[in-house]
Amino acid sequence: MNRRFSSSLLACLAAVGLATGPAPTVALHGYSSAAAQAQHDWEAKFRAMPDPARLKADMEHLAARPHQLGSPYDKANAEWILQHFKDWGWDAHLETFQVLFPTPKQRRVELVEPTHYVATLREPALKADPTSSQQDEQIPTYNAYSADGDVTAPLVYVNQGVPKDYEELERLGVSVEGAIVIARYGGSWRGIKPKVAAEHGAVGCILFSDPIDDGYVQGDVFPDGAWRPAFGVQRGSVMDMPLYPGDPQTPGEASTPDADRIPVEDVKTLTSIPVLPISYEDAKPLLAALQGRVAPEGWRGGLPLTYHLGPGPAKVHLTVNSDWNRVTLYDVIATLRGAKYPDEWVVRGNHFDAWVNGAEDPISGQVVLLEEARALGELVKQGWRPDRTIVYAAWDGEEPGLLGSTEWAEAHADELKRKAVAYINTDGTDRGYLNWSGSHSLERFINGVAHDVADPETDLDVVERLRLKRIRDAKPGEDGDEDRQELRSRPTLRIDALGSGSDYTVFIDHLGIASLGLYFAGESDDGGIYHSIYDDIYWYTHFSDTDFVYGRALAQTVGGAVMRLADAQLLPFDFDGLADTVGKYVDEIEKLADDERSEIVERNTELDEGVFDATDDPKRPEVAPQHEEVPPFLNLAPLENGLAALKTAAEAYRVAEDKIEAGGGAGLGRDGVAQINQRLIQSERRLTSDDGLPGRPWFKHLVYAPGFYTGYGVKTLPGVREAIEQKKWAQAETQAARIGDTLQNEANLILEAAVELEKLAPAE
Amino acid sequence: MNRRFSSSLLACLAAVGLATGPAPTVALHGYSSAAAQAQHDWEAKFRAMPDPARLKADMEHLAARPHQLGSPYDKANAEWILQHFKDWGWDAHLETFQVLFPTPKQRRVELVEPTHYVATLREPALKADPTSSQQDEQIPTYNAYSADGDVTAPLVYVNQGVPKDYEELERLGVSVEGAIVIARYGGSWRGIKPKVAAEHGAVGCILFSDPIDDGYVQGDVFPDGAWRPAFGVQRGSVMDMPLYPGDPQTPGEASTPDADRIPVEDVKTLTSIPVLPISYEDAKPLLAALQGRVAPEGWRGGLPLTYHLGPGPAKVHLTVNSDWNRVTLYDVIATLRGAKYPDEWVVRGNHFDAWVNGAEDPISGQVVLLEEARALGELVKQGWRPDRTIVYAAWDGEEPGLLGSTEWAEAHADELKRKAVAYINTDGTDRGYLNWSGSHSLERFINGVAHDVADPETDLDVVERLRLKRIRDAKPGEDGDEDRQELRSRPTLRIDALGSGSDYTVFIDHLGIASLGLYFAGESDDGGIYHSIYDDIYWYTHFSDTDFVYGRALAQTVGGAVMRLADAQLLPFDFDGLADTVGKYVDEIEKLADDERSEIVERNTELDEGVFDATDDPKRPEVAPQHEEVPPFLNLAPLENGLAALKTAAEAYRVAEDKIEAGGGAGLGRDGVAQINQRLIQSERRLTSDDGLPGRPWFKHLVYAPGFYTGYGVKTLPGVREAIEQKKWAQAETQAARIGDTLQNEANLILEAAVELEKLAPAE
Repeated sequence: MNRRFSSSLLACLAAVGLATGPAPTVALHGYSSAAAQAQHDWEAKFRAMPDPARLKADMEHLAARPHQLGSPYDKANAEWILQHFKDWGWDAHLETFQVLFPTPKQRRVELVEPTHYVATLREPALKADPTSSQQDEQIPTYNAYSADGDVTAPLVYVNQGVPKDYEELERLGVSVEGAIVIARYGGSWRGIKPKVAAEHGAVGCILFSDPIDDGYVQGDVFPDGAWRPAFGVQRGSVMDMPLYPGDPQTPGEASTPDADRIPVEDVKTLTSIPVLPISYEDAKPLLAALQGRVAPEGWRGGLPLTYHLGPGPAKVHLTVNSDWNRVTLYDVIATLRGAKYPDEWVVRGNHFDAWVNGAEDPISGQVVLLEEARALGELVKQGWRPDRTIVYAAWDGEEPGLLGSTEWAEAHADELKRKAVAYINTDGTDRGYLNWSGSHSLERFINGVAHDVADPETDLDVVERLRLKRIRDAKPGEDGDEDRQELRSRPTLRIDALGSGSDYTVFIDHLGIASLGLYFAGESDDGGIYHSIYDDIYWYTHFSDTDFVYGRALAQTVGGAVMRLADAQLLPFDFDGLADTVGKYVDEIEKLADDERSEIVERNTELDEGVFDATDDPKRPEVAPQHEEVPPFLNLAPLENGLAALKTAAEAYRVAEDKIEAGGGAGLGRDGVAQINQRLIQSERRLTSDDGLPGRPWFKHLVYAPGFYTGYGVKTLPGVREAIEQKKWAQAETQAARIGDTLQNEANLILEAAVELEKLAPAE
Repeated sequence: MNRRFSSSLLACLAAVGLATGPAPTVALHGYSSAAAQAQHDWEAKFRAMPDPARLKADMEHLAARPHQLGSPYDKANAEWILQHFKDWGWDAHLETFQVLFPTPKQRRVELVEPTHYVATLREPALKADPTSSQQDEQIPTYNAYSADGDVTAPLVYVNQGVPKDYEELERLGVSVEGAIVIARYGGSWRGIKPKVAAEHGAVGCILFSDPIDDGYVQGDVFPDGAWRPAFGVQRGSVMDMPLYPGDPQTPGEASTPDADRIPVEDVKTLTSIPVLPISYEDAKPLLAALQGRVAPEGWRGGLPLTYHLGPGPAKVHLTVNSDWNRVTLYDVIATLRGAKYPDEWVVRGNHFDAWVNGAEDPISGQVVLLEEARALGELVKQGWRPDRTIVYAAWDGEEPGLLGSTEWAEAHADELKRKAVAYINTDGTDRGYLNWSGSHSLERFINGVAHDVADPETDLDVVERLRLKRIRDAKPGEDGDEDRQELRSRPTLRIDALGSGSDYTVFIDHLGIASLGLYFAGESDDGGIYHSIYDDIYWYTHFSDTDFVYGRALAQTVGGAVMRLADAQLLPFDFDGLADTVGKYVDEIEKLADDERSEIVERNTELDEGVFDATDDPKRPEVAPQHEEVPPFLNLAPLENGLAALKTAAEAYRVAEDKIEAGGGAGLGRDGVAQINQRLIQSERRLTSDDGLPGRPWFKHLVYAPGFYTGYGVKTLPGVREAIEQKKWAQAETQAARIGDTLQNEANLILEAAVELEKLAPAE
């Protein structure tokens, strides 16, 4: 009882701004002792500024009405944000682009056999929830960039509709050729589902939210609880973003009014079959009308029926027609010019467009960005000047396909490649633990920043709380023991790699700018209102970060990171963490290749032994797998060689840094630092290749990419990993060599930086 | 397509009796070459006799009407079975016992707050299913040996109601003190649930069948499919059988009319709180009326609602009142007297009483037993005589508490301890793979017998089919690799250990008679009609072993085993398999002790680190675990020493056998064999202790026992294993010493047998 009381008390103290976190360490990476002290003081001032009441008030304005791309309220929000930046002393302007944005004209999902049912395709207004009734402004439930189409065909249930689900269907003798598939959300980014369905010959695709994933199985449904109500629908884009995001007609180029545009019919990122999302209440009669095999165990959802696969007897009529309009998007770009290094940019963004009201996604992140901007403006008034230029961006058009960030970054690509130090992204936030992903050269840096931020519920620093959570979550057994041991001994807590799904994509994947993505989550009941009309103020203030204290913690974290990057004498990149992480990826790749090989050997053995014939149930026959050629042992030595060079270079750089540090950082005041920083800025760029990844040249980073068949989920060392997954053995070796060279190049750059840094160290 | 055709063709051939399996190996363990040839010929004749049409006809008779213990049709079945044995030339009689058997007088489950609902407690007749309408003879849905009671209390959902569920409830701050608990079936034998509920202070217990376990989540419901319909209920006993089974008033003694009886109020195996089972349709309003915490993820079932824990606001009124009558049970005992060793008995049983019509449970096994008996009678007419006495038993009163087998075996305990070679049990059968459990000294033997039986679907021998299935099911990864390697190299396929839940219990656990339990399963949709009125002929002939070919395969297996045991010159016990298996158990115990210790150390560390405070969600607070004293390192050396002795003895015995075998088994004709067999018969007895297990002296086997908190699930080396699980460290060491001594004694007996056997071998 005591504990609960005291943690509520802390939350109260935190809410009134009295508790601003544990005392920070005054030694700062990249700062001399003297500079660190000054920086520490400014950062402490900063952390006291973000105000939960303002976060809430800003949300109440920005999420007051539906504001999807192209809507009047979206434009009004852009102008409102712009005005705020100006008021806070920023140099701010709008940048506009002309982007293809289909909106729904005709939508129909109709069960025509063996019974009849017309899906409602409509989310009802709820009495308790005032904004849910703004139906005239709500964009209907749909999937943006679905092909137009009108098809009638037998239905097949395909689970989550990812490649391994189709392998299973094949084994069960079920084909989707000529069928409409119905897939539940989850297991991949939604855009993967119609892509894979079409690859297997389906003529239409229906997506639904199963109650087992974010409905009543998870908890009470909105408005009693946080979870998806019966007719709630997840809207969302199905553009093939793993090929390239941004305006479909201008890949790699800004979609300015006079840009060269690919004709719509030639665009490769639109789906080839019509797609629509529906609620679980609309899905129920469709699934209940299916017969055929019972779905495998892991495929069964939470509806009170037996999940069958079909095909049929359920036959469905699906119609999708869109207005294929080009609309104007409004990015808000605001800068604080750097006093010392105006041509070194720290970029930070969050989008402001939503599918409907979007209180959580993205406004809970947008208001954090605004509070940071207000506080930074305030610091400037108090006499602080950033050494580097700070660029704050409020992106438009993220929901349809990362349009605002991608087009802006493509428009400014050359400048960004020269100037961008790092990009920091948020995209909404909830309650709980720090979630962090990004470039591993920034792992140590973001650990340091976050150590200075207090968790609102426990007053622990947010890194320590996360560390203890990871200890608790480590699995029992040997792997877990290893994890716990690392959690108790490694000086920094690991960050995750970035996949896709938000505006950092163009920065890290296309331009090779070191990036971070940050938010708090894990204690809210998330997901049940995602991309529906119910993601609104009522929901957020009842079920998420209800008193906006995690919003404040996020502002403290991101703003602190921006300041510390902007003012560092030596940019706080760290290559030990990078080398260590790449080493883990290389281990994974080697294990993947081994596993793939031994899996095929084992399966062939089992075929020879007659395992599949012996275990086939004549009442539920399955198609036995085929003998497969045993893959060759792959030459992954270039990865190992590249990694070894990277490790050596990272160590040399650390040794040089240690020498600087031993001198109290005095060397950081000397002239050569700027030149070293120039190299460091390029260090992430060195991990890219102009040719990009096989089959998707827009993605240029060779260490991180969203998976071609996962969409949001990251694939590290993607060239070689996806080649092995897709059994392209020759390509795997080519890519391994390419990554090996890239790691060597990166090592060379780091070594050069190390040599230069060593020169600045005091003579021994 | 070809494959399917050919396997159907094989099934047809098999159905008309043409395919009787692969050619058997003529070398038989325990037989000289000459004896093996003769035995092989008789067994082959035997295997051709069991007739699917007769299996079906017998089921149509025995399952025609409800026939629970004490009912007229149950008695009629006993007499019908008796007459058949007599007709087939067996010496047969009825043995009767007087047993306590409560039957329901008053049952009520009523939701009284916040809404009102009265549970139907009634399984409706179904048009398609003729016997479902015999409602006058159907025993109502209830749990036998529930305490009488009338309670009204708040409801708490306790998942499966096993001890770890209550640990979780405690962590979540939910108490069942004074509450009625509602638990879903599964995770333990049902009788554990009210026992554990009462231990935690509950005043009543409701059991329900969740659709996620055996209802619509698994597949179409009866009569369209095999699974449990909305109002289907699982009856069953809740007697505390892990304490002792059989008549509650006469533990360890036969319940003859003049036996000394414990007064009912002093009986320890009745529940202390009222219990009733209900359908999922009756459970739905109760669960829907619960509020409080949302149930943890693994606790959520398949009903279309959010599973909450309570307590309340749901308040339930539960009434149970029984007629506590003593009834007469009728065991049918039939013998074929052994020609050479009439005082060495091979015992084989299956019960015939059911909860209702019981086509699957137990009649599908009883008809197999009858077909074996008919065929053995036929062989006798053809001139075959068993060397040992064969005892066939059709047990009554198994469902309430293994009454018929327990009372009979207690009545004949002394004789059985002297004479019984082995006990072989069945209790129904389905379609699929051989399921086998038993004494590991019989592992090699039953492998040999089953190798001679053809799987009806594939014509592979049933052991080979099972081996290939286990290869297929082996998990990916290292453990699975190890499993596969063993499956490809070990000469015998492993059998499982026996827990409880059927009539072998008294034989193996109380008397120490080497036992086997056999059935086919794995390809039917089982479980959805278990202990309901729908376990009937319609269900069995539509959804289980519909053409009775697996019934025939089971008769071939069990009958073959009976014959081979009855005629063996040297009893085919094998101690290598026993020693190897006990070695695995010892490894498990050592790992368990280590894991228990390191778990406590780790949890204490996490408490010191503040893990639980740091990760407590103030909106969903949990009770942190307590610091626990770190357990001592346990002296398990006696287990290792006993095991080492057992291994040495087993090897000596195998060496002696090899020498006999090298001489074509000629030595087996010599006089000393009978004396060796006497030792072998005692070998399982040597694994028992007169004192029995801690707290439950009726259970005397020190290697196998049903778990005190699992009920059916086996605990091997139970004395030490359960002591460690219950953190009784001193007891664990005492028990380890006791088991060590027992293994030493067993080793001595085996060594003596080995020495004697060696004398029979031809001089080298």
